[in-house]
This record gives sequence, structure tokens and C-alpha cells, in this order.
Amino acid sequence: MSAIENTPSEAPRSYDDAAPVMGFREYWYPACLSREISDRPHAMTIMDEPIVFMRRKGTVYALADECPHRGTRLSLGSCQFPGSNTITCVYHGWTYDVTNGRCVAAVTDGPNSNVVNKVSVRTYPVTDCQGIVWIWMGKQAAVAPEVDIPEYLRQATVIKVVRRHAYGNWRWHVENPGLGHALMLHRSSMYMRVRNYPGIATGIEAKLEDGDCGPWLCEYCSAVQMSAEYPGLGTWPPPGSAWSLVRENMSPMFGIAAKVSLRLPGITRVTHFPINGALYYEWFVHTDAEHYIYFQIACGYPKTAMERASFNLRYNLWGRPAGMVRFNSQDLTMVANSQDFAKRRGGWNAPTRLYGPDRMQIAWRDYALRYARDFANRPGAIQTARDPEKIDDRVQAAGS
Amino acid sequence: MSAIENTPSEAPRSYDDAAPVMGFREYWYPACLSREISDRPHAMTIMDEPIVFMRRKGTVYALADECPHRGTRLSLGSCQFPGSNTITCVYHGWTYDVTNGRCVAAVTDGPNSNVVNKVSVRTYPVTDCQGIVWIWMGKQAAVAPEVDIPEYLRQATVIKVVRRHAYGNWRWHVENPGLGHALMLHRSSMYMRVRNYPGIATGIEAKLEDGDCGPWLCEYCSAVQMSAEYPGLGTWPPPGSAWSLVRENMSPMFGIAAKVSLRLPGITRVTHFPINGALYYEWFVHTDAEHYIYFQIACGYPKTAMERASFNLRYNLWGRPAGMVRFNSQDLTMVANSQDFAKRRGGWNAPTRLYGPDRMQIAWRDYALRYARDFANRPGAIQTARDPEKIDDRVQAAGS
Amino acid sequence: MSAIENTPSEAPRSYDDAAPVMGFREYWYPACLSREISDRPHAMTIMDEPIVFMRRKGTVYALADECPHRGTRLSLGSCQFPGSNTITCVYHGWTYDVTNGRCVAAVTDGPNSNVVNKVSVRTYPVTDCQGIVWIWMGKQAAVAPEVDIPEYLRQATVIKVVRRHAYGNWRWHVENPGLGHALMLHRSSMYMRVRNYPGIATGIEAKLEDGDCGPWLCEYCSAVQMSAEYPGLGTWPPPGSAWSLVRENMSPMFGIAAKVSLRLPGITRVTHFPINGALYYEWFVHTDAEHYIYFQIACGYPKTAMERASFNLRYNLWGRPAGMVRFNSQDLTMVANSQDFAKRRGGWNAPTRLYGPDRMQIAWRDYALRYARDFANRPGAIQTARDPEKIDDRVQAAGS
Repeated sequence: MSAIENTPSEAPRSYDDAAPVMGFREYWYPACLSREISDRPHAMTIMDEPIVFMRRKGTVYALADECPHRGTRLSLGSCQFPGSNTITCVYHGWTYDVTNGRCVAAVTDGPNSNVVNKVSVRTYPVTDCQGIVWIWMGKQAAVAPEVDIPEYLRQATVIKVVRRHAYGNWRWHVENPGLGHALMLHRSSMYMRVRNYPGIATGIEAKLEDGDCGPWLCEYCSAVQMSAEYPGLGTWPPPGSAWSLVRENMSPMFGIAAKVSLRLPGITRVTHFPINGALYYEWFVHTDAEHYIYFQIACGYPKTAMERASFNLRYNLWGRPAGMVRFNSQDLTMVANSQDFAKRRGGWNAPTRLYGPDRMQIAWRDYALRYARDFANRPGAIQTARDPEKIDDRVQAAGS
Repeated sequence: MSAIENTPSEAPRSYDDAAPVMGFREYWYPACLSREISDRPHAMTIMDEPIVFMRRKGTVYALADECPHRGTRLSLGSCQFPGSNTITCVYHGWTYDVTNGRCVAAVTDGPNSNVVNKVSVRTYPVTDCQGIVWIWMGKQAAVAPEVDIPEYLRQATVIKVVRRHAYGNWRWHVENPGLGHALMLHRSSMYMRVRNYPGIATGIEAKLEDGDCGPWLCEYCSAVQMSAEYPGLGTWPPPGSAWSLVRENMSPMFGIAAKVSLRLPGITRVTHFPINGALYYEWFVHTDAEHYIYFQIACGYPKTAMERASFNLRYNLWGRPAGMVRFNSQDLTMVANSQDFAKRRGGWNAPTRLYGPDRMQIAWRDYALRYARDFANRPGAIQTARDPEKIDDRVQAAGS
Repeated sequence: MSAIENTPSEAPRSYDDAAPVMGFREYWYPACLSREISDRPHAMTIMDEPIVFMRRKGTVYALADECPHRGTRLSLGSCQFPGSNTITCVYHGWTYDVTNGRCVAAVTDGPNSNVVNKVSVRTYPVTDCQGIVWIWMGKQAAVAPEVDIPEYLRQATVIKVVRRHAYGNWRWHVENPGLGHALMLHRSSMYMRVRNYPGIATGIEAKLEDGDCGPWLCEYCSAVQMSAEYPGLGTWPPPGSAWSLVRENMSPMFGIAAKVSLRLPGITRVTHFPINGALYYEWFVHTDAEHYIYFQIACGYPKTAMERASFNLRYNLWGRPAGMVRFNSQDLTMVANSQDFAKRRGGWNAPTRLYGPDRMQIAWRDYALRYARDFANRPGAIQTARDPEKIDDRVQAAGS
């Protein structure tokens, strides 16, 4: 149960209590790939809800994957009326119109069955954009997909997707990005070893910036150092290593610094990742309270066949294996680790401490608490502010 | 915990609350095969209770499989006094008379041990009938086995058993049989594909009929149709298929229509299943709240060696593989599916809807609620009525 | 949660409520072998607490294996400052002094990070004794290791260790030793089959004896019989067997009777086990509420190279495989069995019965309830009595 459902009549008091365990619901989320959906049912579980996707006359539909009669998964059924917009349950033949979820026949009971038009299953708004099927899990009316699917993603000419079913919680993962962890955790990855990468970042700030389809919380850093002297301990990072020579010579190839941004409902955007010129997005789509689809999308903007070939080559040989797979696997290990910690220590409210580079996380919590649509109809909650003028000083202050 | 135990002082108000999660207890149930029980202990778990079966001087006995000393499973023990009616615990040598459960020695403590005759384990009434060991799990005194083991089963000259350890709940399974699911679910089975099978059944009624050792709730159908036209959708079942030719020519071989009946504590009886001339029974014997032994028994009545050979041939080549194994496996899949639904949605009381062919289920619930022995001693509950005169009009009305 | 923590303001009323599910905490426990700990982190879970062991400048240290920042296991980290007493978290580089747990740097945040000296992780007292690393899990100040590690163990010239990760609970295991179970359970082991072993033991007494670093509860038996006649049942043990001849001739080789003693926090000591002249200790070190490290230690006292060679030969060929591994595996099976019983029947308070040879267990419970350090600061609890004069008559009386 999300905290939201438990406190219907008052505004959440803190991010800890408010951020729903399976993610904010009143947003579009990527669910699967368009090419995975055919006329045959495709079963998934999203936010603990069984959902069946299928295509009828070229259009993708999503229904609750539960026949109201005996709870049978509709995804075990089939289309018994070729050319119609229906799916028929395998158990007793209850037949639903996939466009609105209405029961239009119970075939074993004849045309006059008393359940016709009396029973229905929930339908979920879906949209097909950039070869990805997006779903609206919310209770409120769906917003236009363009409001949630970032503009730069929609403008991409090449889309690459990597998905993994991860153990953990989105709240750990959305707070993972940023310079703090990159400087330490990813230092040991092949992806970073070939770069001249700083060791210390101070003066981190989080700023709300408009564009790419709404305000993004962007990380800025006013001071990086390649290394520093720690009294009584020594220099860090340890000077010299077998990789130094590689770094000195190859770094320019990989050298454009990534810039990290966050947006509701929990999207990470990284520039020049996993290769120069690409834009990278990731969504955390929960299946149950402890597992989520780590939905990674790399966007490219080649305009010519030659540019496209170059993009694909660099992506396939380097960006995907070294970046989106191995580099990001380090993050998944950390999220899983923090989830184990949360389970030992009583959940998300388990006591943790923050340090300087966590300003991004602090700002995220404040931002989410103020602007999440899930809170929009609650007394005391700040209304959803897409208007740049409403970007609160306090949010920016928290990041400074 | 069954709902029964939770409401000791008043009659259950609804079937949902009343039907115990692991089955009605005050009945005989099949447990295992007679040939499986030797002098060595045979351990089982029935209705969450550990039970050890063993044979002494030719007779089968069942005891609680727990030594009262340290909880050790007695089935790890052995008979230390050859020729006696005892079993000795492997841990410290406490020795029990299997006929009454009394501790008759604690061998490591000498003949004068203070626990002798002071300690005992529960014994369960068992009986051996038709090569099957039946057990009484009830709290009340056991009724005569002949009251519960159907007469036609006892009269069979051939008995065939198939057992599976299934996931799900007996309440889903006992409500599974009937024309409704057969017309849709089993249509795709090899067993049905060779038959000219109708598509629609209306006018289903449930009637209580006496015989075969008490009243059975029998399903009748006043109107079947081979197919029907569904407005805006088309004809169902879809006309024509590769199987039509087979059906036209072979159906008479398999053609005798099965008739389904139900009885407490949850027995399904099907005529002419899995082969013509056979009578089929199935029990749902829970091991824990989510698993049960699906105990399938086919009865044959051959009188001569030739008839017996014919029965065995048809059973082994067709009835068992196509019927009791594969056809019935489809039911197990549905029960498992409904169980998953119940777990997601809060158990047996999860909201479901019924349709016309479910009259059998409605009548079953009413019948079980009124006549289950488990309710017999409860204020307000209807007493067990084996007297045909007491068959209530209301039960029959519910089926019409 | 241990019962101790649940009843902070009054003395526990019974052993059942008082004995903590994962063991008494205010004692030294063996954790691992000294040779297993290098400069690299070694992760364990003891009493549900994640702990990381590592060596720095030759000394072993133990810290809570959880970075206070995000809960990351410090055992995923490494020493980033060669030669220092530190470990650095893999996620963001928080660096801890392993000698006191203080955060001495957050390397990605520069030398002036605000968490330095503001954050710390718990350290656990550890000591290296006889090649074994011992840990203090208590909340009180650690006692001197010599108070808890038995004197005769510390004096051994050879130490042999067998460890297994067992399913069950220490409370079942600490009550397992004694003549009662040995006469029955172990009778079927190779280790006992070669001995002329009695069948019945009566007049068992438990006496507190001082020495070997404090009072031990020792089992005495005033009357053993090789066999007895059980009225109506026969002779037990059954006379004669293929092993008799072996026993008659070989028993003297193995013949020195073992003597069993118990001590807080739950140590079993057995003389002449697993070979003559050896002294055997076992600890039950819980990892979680249902699993523990069964830490078996055999001590030898050879003084010359020849004696040592003889000890090793007898231990490796007989004592270890037949005794510490197979003989003691029978005990593990019983403990697991009793644990299953406890889970079925509502835990440690599940009703059990005791018999004559359980006097040792009764005395243990009384002894533990009176003398466990965990109770020392509780109103109404008897203070820890290491002074032999305080050994209470009642404890000895309970054993008679």
C-alpha cells in the first residue's frame, strides 16, 4: 500500500512517508516494446496489477488481466471472433471488448447471457511512441502523453532500449545518480577507467530548469579536483596506475562530461551517455514492491545514413556493453544493497545520513513532495506547477 | 484457521466465511494407497497435521507424527520390539502403542520410567477400502466408513487412481465442474476434440438426488446448442476445423455424455469418465492451506476377464492419458490461476461474479452450508439431513 | 526480537520467555578462523547483524557492515589509503577508521566534508585466541576474553574446528546433549556401534562444578544397565547383532566414557570426544532466528611430535569423520526436526513433556535463568555468580 492511499485527507508530511513504494501513479510509464505486442496476449505485472497487452487492428490495448468471473488471467485466452476487438476467457468463454473492457458475450451461456453489458474489466490508457508502449496506471484521467514523454526523446531518430528486472526500490535508484557516487563507485568500471576523471566534487547545486517537456532538476558542480590530500591518510585517488597511460591518450575520445537531471515521476536523464552526442533516460517501473523494470533508453539524433551507422557502431561496441550494461549494473548492485539494508532496518524510513553531494537528493525530495500529481487533489498539498513561474525558491535554495 | 473454529457459538452466515480453507473435517478422506503402507513408517501431512501411517500385524494405523517429548517426527523411528504393535521414537526411545497412541515405554529410562501411560499421541481412525487407505480427520466420532465412501465406488471391480499434489484451494476446484467450463476450457483438449460437442448450454439446473450412499447434487441441462450467432461478433464456436472430419466419424466411440454430481465434503462424481462405462470420483485432500492432493479415482465394473481386459486397455491407452491426466490438468491450471487471484485480492472473499451455468455452484454453496457435518452442533445450523425427506425445497429452487 | 528486549523492566518469569531466540548476547562467541581474515573484508551475519571482519597491521577488527549513508555493505569496499587503519565504502567513498568506527573522510567530498568525525559505525570487540576469532555482541562492556573462553581450550596444543550452517535453534541444541539421546539416537551411528554401550541410564543428576574458567553444569549418572526387560514388549536393546563381535573385541579401543557439561551462554563440553584424550566444545552462533553456525572445536594436548602425529592420525581417520561429522549430524537432524515442530506449534513455548534423563535440561534452564549476564541489570534477577559460594542449592536440587 502506498502511503498516499493511507492518508487520503491530509497532505503528506514528509517525503519518507509520501513517496509511494511502487512509484507515483499519475504519470505515463514505459511498459514494453511495441514490437513485442501482437494479436496474442502479452501478460505483465505493473505496480502489482496484472495487465494484459494485445493488438487489435493495429492498435495496442491494455486490460486488467483478470476475468471478474473466477479471476482467470485473460492472457490465457484468445480471440474467438476473428476480426473483432475482443478477447475471450479460456475458462468459461466470457468475452470482452478490449477498447472499453465491457463484457460483450459469455459464449457458453448463449447470446442472451445475463452478464453481457453488466460486467467489465478495467482498461488502461496506452500509447505507442518511439517503438515503446507507454501505460497510464493512474486513478485520475490520463494527461496527454506528450506532457510526460520528454520532447527530446520524441525527437530522437534512433532509440535503443536495455531492460532489466531489478531487485530494489525506485526511491533508492532515483537518488543514486549524481557526481557523488560516480566519482567513487564507477571509478572501477571500464567505462570510467579510460577517462581522466576527477576525484572530488564540491559546490554541488541542484537547479530547476525548464525545457524537454517541463522542469528538470539539474545537477551543477562549481568545483572539481582531480585529487586531494587527506590529512593523516594520504592522497586520493591514489596517484598512478596502469590505466594512467590509457587515460592520458584516450580520454579525449570519451571526454564530454555527462550532466545529470531528474524529473517526476522518477526519470533520470544523462547527457552524452552512453556515447557522446546521445541523450539517456531511465525509468523505474515497479512490478511489485521489491522489483522493478529498469527501463533504460538511449536516444540518438543522426540525420544521415553515415551518422546513423557511426552511432550504431559506437553504441554497439562501447556504449551498450561498457555503459548501459556494465556501468549501470554497478548502480543496480548498490540499489539492491540499500534495499537489503531497508529490509533489515525497517524500510525506507531506516535512518541514513547525507553529505554534501547529496544536495541533489535533498532537492529531489522537496521537488517530488511539492509537484507530484499524486498529491494534487489533497488539502494542503501544493498544486502541480508546470508553470515556470511557480518554481519555488525553496527548492533551489535546498540545492545550494 | 478455518472460519468454523473462529465462530464457535453461532451459525456461519455465508458460505464464504464458513467453508473451511482446508476442507470440511468431519468426513472420511482418501489418504494413500494400501500397498504403500508397510511396517515402516510412511509420513504425510494432511490438513497441516503431520501424520504417520504404518502397518502392524496386517492392519493400517495412523498417528500424529510428533513425539510429545521434543516434537520429533515418529516417522523417523522404527519398531524396536519385533512383533509388537509399537513404534519407538528415534531421539530418546519413547515407545507408543499404535492402536491407541499410549506411551508404553521410554526405553532409555528403564521399565519404570515416569512417562509410561502418562503420555500419548493422537490416533486417527483409518480404514482400508478398495486398496485405498481412508482417514478420519474430524473432531467428532468417526461415522461408519460406508456412510462416506460411495456405494458405487465400493462395488467397483476395478479401481484406478491418479494423484497429483496441486497448488490451489478445494473451494475453487469443487466449483469447477459443470457444463460451463467444459464447453470452453476443455474444447481445446484432445479428449474433447474427437467429440461432436455442443457449444452452448442453457437451462442448467441442480437437483439433489438420493442414491450412491446419500444425496448428490446433480447437474441437468434442458437445452444445449451446437453453436449460436452472437450479434456483432459472429458464430461461436467458429465453424469448421481440421478436427471436424474426425469428430463426424469418431464421436460415437466416445459419445456417451458425462453427467456431473457433487457431494459433501467435496466429492465430484462423473459418469462415463474417463471411458464409457466407468464412474469417476475426485477428492481434494489438503496438505496445507494452498496445496492439496488431487485424488482421482476411476471405477470399472467388468465382470469377466475379457471385460476387464477391455476396460484396462481403453483406460490405459485413452482414459488415463487423455482424460484423467491431460483433460483434468486443464482444471488444475484454472484452480491455480484462481488461487493466485485470491491471493492478490484478499482471499476467498475476493469479489467474483456468477453467470447462468453457475447455478450448480450456487446450489453447492447452499447445500454445503446446510448439510456439512462440521456445522451440525452449532446453534442455528441445520442438522445433517441424510433422510431424503429433509432435502429442502430451497436447495432445489436455488438450482432452477 | 529477544524476549529480553521485550521485558526491560522486570525479571523474566520463565526460561521459555527469557532465553533469547538468537542466544544470550553478553558473552564472547567464536565467529570465524583467524586464517580466514586478511586485509580484504570478510562479511558475516551474526545474530541478524551484518558484520565485516578485516585485518589491519596484523590485528583483526570487526565493524557493522553498513555504511550509515545509504546502508551499503562496507565489505564491498576496500582500503583506499594503503597502510592506514581504514576502509572506504564502495558507493560514495565514506572512509572509516576500523579501530573506532569513526568516519575520517568522505573522499568524493574533499578533505573538508561535513560528515568527517560526525558519523561512525559500530565496532565490535574481537580477539584472536587459538586461531579462532571471537566476537563480543553484547550491549554491556566486554568482559575479558579469558572469562568466557574456557581455560582448557586455551591450554590446548592442537585445535581442530568443524563448522556447519545449521537450521534450527540453539535452545533445542543446548538441551540435546546428555545420556538420554545418546543411548537411542546415536546407537545407530558407526561411532557407537563399535562400543559396548549401555541401553538404559537412570539416576541422572546435574551438578555445578567449578573449574575450566567458571562453573559448569555436569551430568552424572548413578546407574546404567546394558539392557532391560520391558513387560509385554521384550528386551531392549534387542540382543545380538552383527556388531556384537566387533563390540566385544574393539570396544576397549574406544572405551573411555564421555562426560557432558554445559555452560553459559550455551557451550557443550564433552570429555574424550571425538577421540580418547581430547576435549570437545561446541557453540551455537546464530546468524538469524532459524539458522546458526554449529561451531565444533576439538582440543588436543599432545606434547611431543610423536603424540601430535598420533592425535592427528586418530582425529583425521576416526574422530572427525565418524564423530564430529557423522555422529553430530544426527543431532543436527533432531534439532531441525524440533524446529519444524516449534514452527507448526507456535514456537519455543509449544507444549513438550520431559522425562527422567531430562534432569540435565531442567537444571540448565534454571542455571541459565539465574546466571545469564543478560539478566544481570534487571530488577529481581539474580546477579551473575561466578563465585562458587553462590552456586545455589536449588540448581543442584533440580538435578537430583
